[in-house]
Amino acid sequence: MLNYSMVFQGTAFTSSTPKEVKILKDNLFCINGEGLIERIVSPANPEYQAILDTYLHKENFHRLEEGQYILPGFVDLHVHAPQWAQAGTALDLPLYDWLNSYTFPIESKFADLNFAKNVYEEVVHTLLANGTTTALYFATVHKEASILLAEICAQKGQRGLVGKVVMDNPDQTPNYYRDVNTLTALTDTEEFIIAVKELGEKTKQGVYPVVTPRFIPSCTNEALKGLGELAVKYDTHIQSHCSESDWEHGYVQDRFQKNDAYALRDFGLLTEKSVVAHCNFLDDADADLFAQTGTAVAHCPVSNAYFANSVIPIAHLHSKKVEIGLGSDISGGFSPSLFDNARQAVISSRMLEDGVDKNLPSTKRGVPNSRITINEAFYLATAGGGESLSLPIGRIQEKYTWDIQIIDTKLPTAKLPLFEEKESLEDIFQKIMYLVRPENIQEVWVQGEKVHSRK
Amino acid sequence: MLNYSMVFQGTAFTSSTPKEVKILKDNLFCINGEGLIERIVSPANPEYQAILDTYLHKENFHRLEEGQYILPGFVDLHVHAPQWAQAGTALDLPLYDWLNSYTFPIESKFADLNFAKNVYEEVVHTLLANGTTTALYFATVHKEASILLAEICAQKGQRGLVGKVVMDNPDQTPNYYRDVNTLTALTDTEEFIIAVKELGEKTKQGVYPVVTPRFIPSCTNEALKGLGELAVKYDTHIQSHCSESDWEHGYVQDRFQKNDAYALRDFGLLTEKSVVAHCNFLDDADADLFAQTGTAVAHCPVSNAYFANSVIPIAHLHSKKVEIGLGSDISGGFSPSLFDNARQAVISSRMLEDGVDKNLPSTKRGVPNSRITINEAFYLATAGGGESLSLPIGRIQEKYTWDIQIIDTKLPTAKLPLFEEKESLEDIFQKIMYLVRPENIQEVWVQGEKVHSRK
Ligand SMILES: [Zn+2]
Ligand SMILES: [Zn+2]
Repeated sequence: MLNYSMVFQGTAFTSSTPKEVKILKDNLFCINGEGLIERIVSPANPEYQAILDTYLHKENFHRLEEGQYILPGFVDLHVHAPQWAQAGTALDLPLYDWLNSYTFPIESKFADLNFAKNVYEEVVHTLLANGTTTALYFATVHKEASILLAEICAQKGQRGLVGKVVMDNPDQTPNYYRDVNTLTALTDTEEFIIAVKELGEKTKQGVYPVVTPRFIPSCTNEALKGLGELAVKYDTHIQSHCSESDWEHGYVQDRFQKNDAYALRDFGLLTEKSVVAHCNFLDDADADLFAQTGTAVAHCPVSNAYFANSVIPIAHLHSKKVEIGLGSDISGGFSPSLFDNARQAVISSRMLEDGVDKNLPSTKRGVPNSRITINEAFYLATAGGGESLSLPIGRIQEKYTWDIQIIDTKLPTAKLPLFEEKESLEDIFQKIMYLVRPENIQEVWVQGEKVHSRK
Repeated sequence: MLNYSMVFQGTAFTSSTPKEVKILKDNLFCINGEGLIERIVSPANPEYQAILDTYLHKENFHRLEEGQYILPGFVDLHVHAPQWAQAGTALDLPLYDWLNSYTFPIESKFADLNFAKNVYEEVVHTLLANGTTTALYFATVHKEASILLAEICAQKGQRGLVGKVVMDNPDQTPNYYRDVNTLTALTDTEEFIIAVKELGEKTKQGVYPVVTPRFIPSCTNEALKGLGELAVKYDTHIQSHCSESDWEHGYVQDRFQKNDAYALRDFGLLTEKSVVAHCNFLDDADADLFAQTGTAVAHCPVSNAYFANSVIPIAHLHSKKVEIGLGSDISGGFSPSLFDNARQAVISSRMLEDGVDKNLPSTKRGVPNSRITINEAFYLATAGGGESLSLPIGRIQEKYTWDIQIIDTKLPTAKLPLFEEKESLEDIFQKIMYLVRPENIQEVWVQGEKVHSRK
């Protein structure tokens, strides 16, 4: 009882199931030296008072203030770190044009390590300030700049999973922005993996290398095959895009006479540690393959409104046991906040259920049983993300990491609308999910270390 | 030249047309004692230097700091002020249940003026802090509390247009929350109008009474007719809801064998000063009637995702010359920010265009030519709102009121992603529209008075 590295006292919200949120009211959260939650003790537990008495006046005791609540830190499953430089712009173009006119030009600038450092420091800081404690990043094709992003995550205390992007297909990538050839794409990736693994071993919260074929169109068959082999050799995470838009989905069918999911599987790229972005056009066989292989979907609802030509049926995929988390997809999505994305996930699911065209009869307008609740969106942003990455994160639970955000609902400049004497904790949770702004996020902790504070 | 009450120097963005944004770079904005923009002087104007020299060292000269920009204050065309108390909760119910289980109970509490004061002071403050300089409010059925809301607007410097809500139909309103009878509904409304008109005459920025039948289901024919007559007698604004959901749209067709729009018109409730919320199910004849009568649509995109069962075809209605502005619809919509609503307006319009169901072929999935750009969403939130209310607001233009928000893009705690030496002002505008948080809104001015500051 005397060995905890820290003890927090307060009320926390965490997913117990994809649809249910558990409220841990006035609990004690006992953190060990590795930054893991060693014990959670409720006031009903006979030991509660003894632990409280032991820690109450110690420096490592943190009692939340009136109006403050603990949420798990968010897990952002899909961020293009370099694209932070263009977030919020050029969203009026279709995917293919957006990539070639805006995105590839800006990503090509990350050959310049000074430019990369400026952008990467800000994006990591911005995500932490938005409560994102773990992020799965696409960097660029540049090995050095990609290592730099992992170093910045390590230094700022974020759990970063970082991929050097592979784009070696001359037919689908511009002259000024691609891997030199397939061989360099693979050797650069291998060197990148080794460097980031080494860095990860020295980093308390962990940083991880990720095998990252951008998407099938930008890669040759040889590169895709080689990347699958590297992922096995080094037991790494894998990330890519899949079945995003009508164009992308159709391109892969033309090239391989199969859907993205099966093509990726045949290159060895669907594993328990794979996370694939978007996946709007998965059919049921694709979904079954995802469930069998443990491949997760990174749902990016803000981005999808601009580039995916449809709403992904999250409720249906959940019913098929596919792992799903949430992604900001900066900058296809403009917002660095998973609060914003959780809200949009609910909104988009309701639009899928109700439909959009008022000229159709209500019975033919939408897809029944598609809506998800704010509880489910919270699950996607936290526990679902943790499961997708196969890491002990995203829950306030024993043996999980102490990755949290402390929300202040009574901040004078951004007070939530709480007027009743005894507002229910269920309502407070909903108000937090729908109304919190970055300024309400007073502190962010990763693996037992404070990595952001507004004070 | 010596008589301006204030001079601002800086860069402003304002709509020149619904689709185009005009950039006033490093202009001088000369404000008179009534709080109107008397002159806008560009650096190319020969008088620029003389005006600058005259005012530069005066106390009433305001030069924007590096990274700061001026936007018009937002015009929120649809806010249920009492519902701020429940914002963010209970969004999983259909409209009819939401009204009866949550909304009517909370609105009934506004018989208590202390409770009303707490909530109303916070909602007016919150909207100002979100850049909303003019708001069209539904209060409750209670005359006194509705007058109190107008007083709070007057005192906090917001241009409030406030309606005492009329609900006198016993079939569609609960026992505990309705007007006593049709007569009291009308006399209370008339007394309310007189009181708020008097208050408005003493208020620099103006406050206005609004004739407010909640929506057709909650009102008797006699009340609707009487309210139309009061609006003529006192030349007031009118607000209501119209054609919101399948249920509401169907109810009115059953009762009157016509659509909401024609029913409202026949009671004298569609005028140049009418603003009607939602309007998702308007048909083309309804839209023509709106255009002929000068009736405006308050588009509430966040709320519509929860309660409207469809996406309103804004681009189509604009092409039919219907006036349209933006509404938060607190608390059908959870967000008090018109930035959030502008973003959702773009997103929803894209979902209408692309469709939502991936199982349909792309050619049958959506409604072509439905998307609007962020420029158009900005227009809805500013100039479109001003036109809807027939007031000289929502533009940075001579003879318009000095209702502005000053946006700081370089705030250390919420810096926008600006990395290029010379980022184009077009891109900066888009980043502002997509990424600004309340904390970036450093100052808000209404009618030449500073009403909010983060300093
Ligand atoms: Zn992506
Ligand atoms: Zn409403």
